[in-house]
Amino acid sequence: MTAIREIHTKLFHVPLAEVLVDAKHGDHTLFELVTVTIVLTDGTEGTGYTYTGGKGGHAIAAMVHHDLAPFLIGQDASAVEDLYDGMQWHIHYVGRGGIASFAISAVDIALWDIRGKKRDWPLWKLAGGADNRCKAYCGGIDLNFPLPKLLKSIQGYLDRGFNGVKIKIGQPTIEADLSRIAAVREFIGPDIAFMVDANYSMSVDEAITAAQAFAPYDILWFEEPTIPDDYKGYGKIANATGCPLAMGENLHTIHEFEYAFRDAKLSFIQPDASNCGGVTGFLQVADLSREHNLPICSHGMQELHVSLVSAQVNAGWIEVHSFPIDQYTKQPLRVENHLALAPEAPGIGVDFDWALLEPHNILTL
Amino acid sequence: MTAIREIHTKLFHVPLAEVLVDAKHGDHTLFELVTVTIVLTDGTEGTGYTYTGGKGGHAIAAMVHHDLAPFLIGQDASAVEDLYDGMQWHIHYVGRGGIASFAISAVDIALWDIRGKKRDWPLWKLAGGADNRCKAYCGGIDLNFPLPKLLKSIQGYLDRGFNGVKIKIGQPTIEADLSRIAAVREFIGPDIAFMVDANYSMSVDEAITAAQAFAPYDILWFEEPTIPDDYKGYGKIANATGCPLAMGENLHTIHEFEYAFRDAKLSFIQPDASNCGGVTGFLQVADLSREHNLPICSHGMQELHVSLVSAQVNAGWIEVHSFPIDQYTKQPLRVENHLALAPEAPGIGVDFDWALLEPHNILTL
Ligand SMILES: [Mg+2]
Ligand SMILES: [Mg+2]
Repeated sequence: MTAIREIHTKLFHVPLAEVLVDAKHGDHTLFELVTVTIVLTDGTEGTGYTYTGGKGGHAIAAMVHHDLAPFLIGQDASAVEDLYDGMQWHIHYVGRGGIASFAISAVDIALWDIRGKKRDWPLWKLAGGADNRCKAYCGGIDLNFPLPKLLKSIQGYLDRGFNGVKIKIGQPTIEADLSRIAAVREFIGPDIAFMVDANYSMSVDEAITAAQAFAPYDILWFEEPTIPDDYKGYGKIANATGCPLAMGENLHTIHEFEYAFRDAKLSFIQPDASNCGGVTGFLQVADLSREHNLPICSHGMQELHVSLVSAQVNAGWIEVHSFPIDQYTKQPLRVENHLALAPEAPGIGVDFDWALLEPHNILTL
Repeated sequence: MTAIREIHTKLFHVPLAEVLVDAKHGDHTLFELVTVTIVLTDGTEGTGYTYTGGKGGHAIAAMVHHDLAPFLIGQDASAVEDLYDGMQWHIHYVGRGGIASFAISAVDIALWDIRGKKRDWPLWKLAGGADNRCKAYCGGIDLNFPLPKLLKSIQGYLDRGFNGVKIKIGQPTIEADLSRIAAVREFIGPDIAFMVDANYSMSVDEAITAAQAFAPYDILWFEEPTIPDDYKGYGKIANATGCPLAMGENLHTIHEFEYAFRDAKLSFIQPDASNCGGVTGFLQVADLSREHNLPICSHGMQELHVSLVSAQVNAGWIEVHSFPIDQYTKQPLRVENHLALAPEAPGIGVDFDWALLEPHNILTL
């Protein structure tokens, strides 16, 4: 065994080039990046991380430093799955989702980084090894973009080599959403995959009306029509409309995913390793997705999910998110023949440029 | 309107007289108290708070200070329910339970303290007004107490005027649990209410076996037999055994309570205002409990729950917990004719002795 000697936690407030808006989270002016670097007694280091849209970063860093680190120091770093379970029980009373899931995710990803480096394997091989590339689509936080700007952003996605695009919906009227949807479908033509994301801004009945109105536009999925907690509401929307539904970015425990698989009649599942328990949590969801015959997709964090999704035999699409993480890592996401390529470097394959991040560091623990 | 001007957050590590152990949370050597004091522009002050068993306090304080306070400053303090909803949406992406529920609880309780002071009403009147007293039982974190010590602690409960007692179960064997249960029932006689609490240490099948074996001992309820996430598992235990079940201390969102009411076949519900959204969250659960015809009970925080439970027409039992909060407030819980009495002071009726707490203060924000 090689024991954990040190855990270093940093919080960064990374500015966005412009204010981004969706239907439920208001204005985004920055994203929060929490990094966790674990150092073993033999000197091996691994770094994991999580994101937020601007709130919760201090709480995540505090939980890593004050609650998880004391539990982890001295333990065998190779027992990743045992440490994952141990962390869940250690903070159970204040956990089971929310901040605890983000904090555990960052630690778990660091442990997988170490696992990969010790074995000299890239994450896509460690995490299943089915393939080293997968389908990918681009989506922006673009609810407030006027139509010309929206179409320009979509042209940018196509220019970068993607063959799938997603837009935010949840305009004041369904007609306003539909006219944007019609314009985008006309703009991209019939061969580009097209998804819409309501960020749970609709009631079940509103979502049923909306989903029925989407029929002419060949929507690959309707993401988060209503609040993530209403699993049976999702089931009603699917039953009433036949529209393929997707969710997962707001599910933080394996139990929440179990409820979704059981009741929500989803066509796609979209876990996010930054908030569902890291690589270990993501792979647990991937196992469930196979039991339930759903393609496994992902939310955000494309630089890591490209490895995790490619590795699965039932790989779906990764979301390529608009947070500019690629500006702060040493390997921007590569796209070839419309497919995203997983890094081949040992470990998680996400190597931060600390010098570029440094000006945005606001807390070091 | 009177606007919120300042929010002060403090974290205390309050020592316990001895190490306390239950089946799932390990050793307790201290409890964490997070206090939130809100000051209005007219100088009115209110204090709310939450607890933990020793982990998460820094994260809770960080979320209050960094995420909730900036949202609250300048807002109308009397719009308590709107602020509650606003806080939930404000931290939604990192929320929906866990740390966020603890943080929102502390803020919400401070706002109710102000509401009571402004109206010159005690909490039991503000929160429903059905009565100012309710049934109360004592329970300790006593899993590792040898039997003589367990019986001595129970004698202490009876001496203080309580007519209900609860013990922890989850010994290595069901036989060990049963022999303690038999000894306690013999000790207290047939007229004292007697509950057991497994802190979700059993599988569904183990809990069914245990519940069947409890039959001779007239157990008022079997608390948290299995993990709180397995609502349908609770339903199975209830169906298989007819044993009355109770849970709630680990449910943090109104949706989790909805699942429990729908699927868990409970006989008692036990919300905790310190982790289910404060007074506002507790009263939402109380409304649901009436829809579902269950008595509303509570977990911990007896100094506050005495008011919240007494106020409900469907009042059940409050738990009087072993954390020594009464040593640090100016009104220890009063018991008369086996009933706990709600404070009559305006506001929440929990007035901390800051001088006594001060030596245990480890963070001020
Ligand atoms: Mg989304
Ligand atoms: Mg309990």
